[in-house]
Amino acid sequence: MKSIHQTLCILLISGAVCFTASAQTTVPKKNYTLVIHGGAGNITASNLPAEIAAQYKSELSEVLRHGDSILRDGGTSIDAVESCVRMMEDCPLFNAGKGAVFTAEGKNELDAAIMDGKTGLAGAVAGVTTIKNPISAARAVMEKSNHVMMAGKGAEVFAAENGLEIVDPTYFFTQNRWNDYLKAKSKADSISNIDKKHGTVGCVAVDIYGNLAAATSTGGMTLKKYGRIGDSPIIGAGTYADNASCAISATGHGEFFIRNVVAYDIAALMKYKGLPLAEAANEVVMQKLRQQGGAGGIIGVDAKGNYTMTFNTAGMFRGYIKSDGEMKVGMFMEE
Amino acid sequence: MKSIHQTLCILLISGAVCFTASAQTTVPKKNYTLVIHGGAGNITASNLPAEIAAQYKSELSEVLRHGDSILRDGGTSIDAVESCVRMMEDCPLFNAGKGAVFTAEGKNELDAAIMDGKTGLAGAVAGVTTIKNPISAARAVMEKSNHVMMAGKGAEVFAAENGLEIVDPTYFFTQNRWNDYLKAKSKADSISNIDKKHGTVGCVAVDIYGNLAAATSTGGMTLKKYGRIGDSPIIGAGTYADNASCAISATGHGEFFIRNVVAYDIAALMKYKGLPLAEAANEVVMQKLRQQGGAGGIIGVDAKGNYTMTFNTAGMFRGYIKSDGEMKVGMFMEE
Repeated sequence: MKSIHQTLCILLISGAVCFTASAQTTVPKKNYTLVIHGGAGNITASNLPAEIAAQYKSELSEVLRHGDSILRDGGTSIDAVESCVRMMEDCPLFNAGKGAVFTAEGKNELDAAIMDGKTGLAGAVAGVTTIKNPISAARAVMEKSNHVMMAGKGAEVFAAENGLEIVDPTYFFTQNRWNDYLKAKSKADSISNIDKKHGTVGCVAVDIYGNLAAATSTGGMTLKKYGRIGDSPIIGAGTYADNASCAISATGHGEFFIRNVVAYDIAALMKYKGLPLAEAANEVVMQKLRQQGGAGGIIGVDAKGNYTMTFNTAGMFRGYIKSDGEMKVGMFMEE
Repeated sequence: MKSIHQTLCILLISGAVCFTASAQTTVPKKNYTLVIHGGAGNITASNLPAEIAAQYKSELSEVLRHGDSILRDGGTSIDAVESCVRMMEDCPLFNAGKGAVFTAEGKNELDAAIMDGKTGLAGAVAGVTTIKNPISAARAVMEKSNHVMMAGKGAEVFAAENGLEIVDPTYFFTQNRWNDYLKAKSKADSISNIDKKHGTVGCVAVDIYGNLAAATSTGGMTLKKYGRIGDSPIIGAGTYADNASCAISATGHGEFFIRNVVAYDIAALMKYKGLPLAEAANEVVMQKLRQQGGAGGIIGVDAKGNYTMTFNTAGMFRGYIKSDGEMKVGMFMEE
């Protein structure tokens, strides 16, 4: 009988793929990439005060480093995207979780979705008002129920039953957003487009196992009415992940993203037309959506670690980090 | 100067397309096709009493003739699909509108969506309890708001403000569904799969102008909890229409249809891979969904009037009617 050493040598000589003995039982390590966004809109150097811009830059960098630390240690993409979105939900700068915009009734109604590209499973919550981290509720829907989407009070009951942190709705209050709300209500029309329509946070990642995941969370539109649901919690519209194509998280004028099934359309262009990720994103965001006046953007990764941050607005809060240490944060068009 | 008659003769001689003088100012008439479904599931000759089967057959035929009368007179596909789905919502045989199944709390919570393939516009309502015809509320969302999707109380306020008929929630009560609910609650497990998961109604059509439309309405799953939303009101999952590809309405285990973005996936296979409608539907319903255990089916039409009624369950309440008078109603696999 040949020894293990002999067998390894034969494999090496024959040119077969060979790992160290200890790695033979594990999946080979691949490169990882993580991308985030914090909303797209009329974000320009001239209308974003330098002090605020610095805060966004600092927060985006911190989120990227946090995601990096998870993936570098062998964490999964689904853990990384949930955790990065939680950080942005907890940060009052972004229109998700604490810092969400106000509805016409002066409330905060939150939507979120998550999808696991390895299993094809997904979870989403819509119109929730008491769940501290909607993205974690979306993950609980995915992992602890037979459903994909839950809305309103029902979703809150489910979240509570599954041990998620429940807060008083006043937790989500921030003075800045309340000021925006009052201005919008008085029809002063002085709130920026960012606040009006395009605030949302999201994260996509491919981990060292080659698995993709996507997560999106939002407070929706300022002054939204009638229990309006946007694209963020709609699988295929604002959020989608499949190892065979890509992971996408969108931000923008949600109605256009729903009607155009944006996230899945990018995946379909890759699967059925053979387009690379960046070209597929370009066709959907810069061609289809722009022609319709559908303002916004997307972030995406594929299984090879390619990434894209494509937007047809003046700016998008965004950033990426890769396993080779490459990292970049951007806000305006030319960065 | 040539007379109109001379001009017509020249056109005729030169082989150009020629209509009667009065038709020259209108769009040329094309063939129309309308397809309906009333849910898919364990529908077999052995478990559907002949008397009940006859009721379904009669109702499906009546809906088809109703849709035919609209399209024959030059009505639009969007009018036809809304009107046919309204008829099925009003009929207690189907799990939509009156006759909807009961939630875990013993309520009726209704979802519906509609999409216009000519304009790409869409509307949907989810979790509504007082709107007599949810499909008409979905159409109002599409035509009278800037939104695509509204949920719960907010959607009901919007519907009332827009003149839709509001009813007491008891309107939706039927003794048969209540009996199903009581049996399910007592874990007698004696309700059929049809009632459990796959009841939904839908209609797709192409009109004489070559425009497509799709509509879907449902009461969801018996004993659904936590504000669960299924695929019916999700554009791209249970409902989709685009003149450039197809109009689709789905019925089945909603979670699988959401995760697989079923309706839009069929459209994408047509647009990007060049598959004919029936092949695209087959790939999604009979391959992808079946492999995952995702039970259900879809109806579809394309702009040429081709239709499909594809299901991976034992049966699907279904039927189609074409402008040449061809009409068929089916329930079981082999029909």
